[in-house]
Amino acid sequence: MAGRPSGRRPGVSGTREAILAAARHLFSEQGFDRTTIRQVAADAGVDPTLVHHYFGSKQRLFVAVVGLPFDSAHVVDRVLSGDPDGVGGRLAGFVVGALEDPDSRRRLLGLVRAAVSEPGAAAMLRERLTEDLLGRVASGIGADRPEYRATLCASQMIGLAMARHVVGVEPLASTPPQLVVADIAPTLQRYLTAPLADVTTAGTAGSGR
Amino acid sequence: MAGRPSGRRPGVSGTREAILAAARHLFSEQGFDRTTIRQVAADAGVDPTLVHHYFGSKQRLFVAVVGLPFDSAHVVDRVLSGDPDGVGGRLAGFVVGALEDPDSRRRLLGLVRAAVSEPGAAAMLRERLTEDLLGRVASGIGADRPEYRATLCASQMIGLAMARHVVGVEPLASTPPQLVVADIAPTLQRYLTAPLADVTTAGTAGSGR
Repeated sequence: MAGRPSGRRPGVSGTREAILAAARHLFSEQGFDRTTIRQVAADAGVDPTLVHHYFGSKQRLFVAVVGLPFDSAHVVDRVLSGDPDGVGGRLAGFVVGALEDPDSRRRLLGLVRAAVSEPGAAAMLRERLTEDLLGRVASGIGADRPEYRATLCASQMIGLAMARHVVGVEPLASTPPQLVVADIAPTLQRYLTAPLADVTTAGTAGSGR
Repeated sequence: MAGRPSGRRPGVSGTREAILAAARHLFSEQGFDRTTIRQVAADAGVDPTLVHHYFGSKQRLFVAVVGLPFDSAHVVDRVLSGDPDGVGGRLAGFVVGALEDPDSRRRLLGLVRAAVSEPGAAAMLRERLTEDLLGRVASGIGADRPEYRATLCASQMIGLAMARHVVGVEPLASTPPQLVVADIAPTLQRYLTAPLADVTTAGTAGSGR
């Protein structure tokens, strides 16, 4: 992993790209905590001081390389097109599918893992997932309180990634994707479109209604 | 944090207890990855070899000290007592409440954080949360496929802990607990009691129904 000769010196733009490629690989394989600037430099075949020169800190390097592995605007369009009653199903289909694909799963789980220990990664996950993706879906269907609805959806989606792919709870982890989509879809549909609790109705819910 | 004199030598049972207390504190404050046997030993005022002697490895020490911060059997009884239509609300009330209490939140989030990087912690979270707690709730109300229902509930509960308390997505993170309970309750109720998807009905769900 740290095997390339450090004597190799690519040009300026090549150096930056080599650092980004090495960082992308190491962060997705090992997560944020276990990846070091020194490892990234070794894999990129450059001196560690160059990594600091171009990116400043491990956190800034992380934010530079790890994004959501899809085009949010495109996903929002797809989820919003068609029957409004199907928006939860289309969103569930999208997230379960993104977690089935090995490459996009690696990047998504890397982001979730990093968000657990790294405030910069948590901030990025908050913005990209709830604002760019889910907030636009909730706004697009004309729901009230779209920001809150987006975060309820985010809780189920992050929890699905954690339970199915990180913690690996069975039988959820081995349930075929189309069944998971079907069972999660009504939750997302309800978070996006059903009436939300308010202070006048919530009093009884915790005690058992 | 690593400040106590290592010359202090408590008795045999005192040593074990001192190691457990130090480990409990450090794991909950720093998580699994950042806590070292050396730190635990220093905080307990013992030699690191004694930690290895009593507990073998960091992973086994972790499993020895970190459990769910409540008595699962008691929680299952409380969640199952009363109107079956209220089981989702009582379960939501319990989990949101456990995450509101500072001490039990610290332990729960420590466990979730550890599960992200540590297979032993992930295994414990799987067993304690899905088998001891949620599986018994699902079995107790007589649902079909209780293990799968338990893991669907686990996904929403872990996701709530992650989104509200670890990633801190707003406005979910600052929404009053009783409103979160009311909005999450129908999800848990549905996962526990509603008909589940099967292979004959799931085909259309991903594409929009």
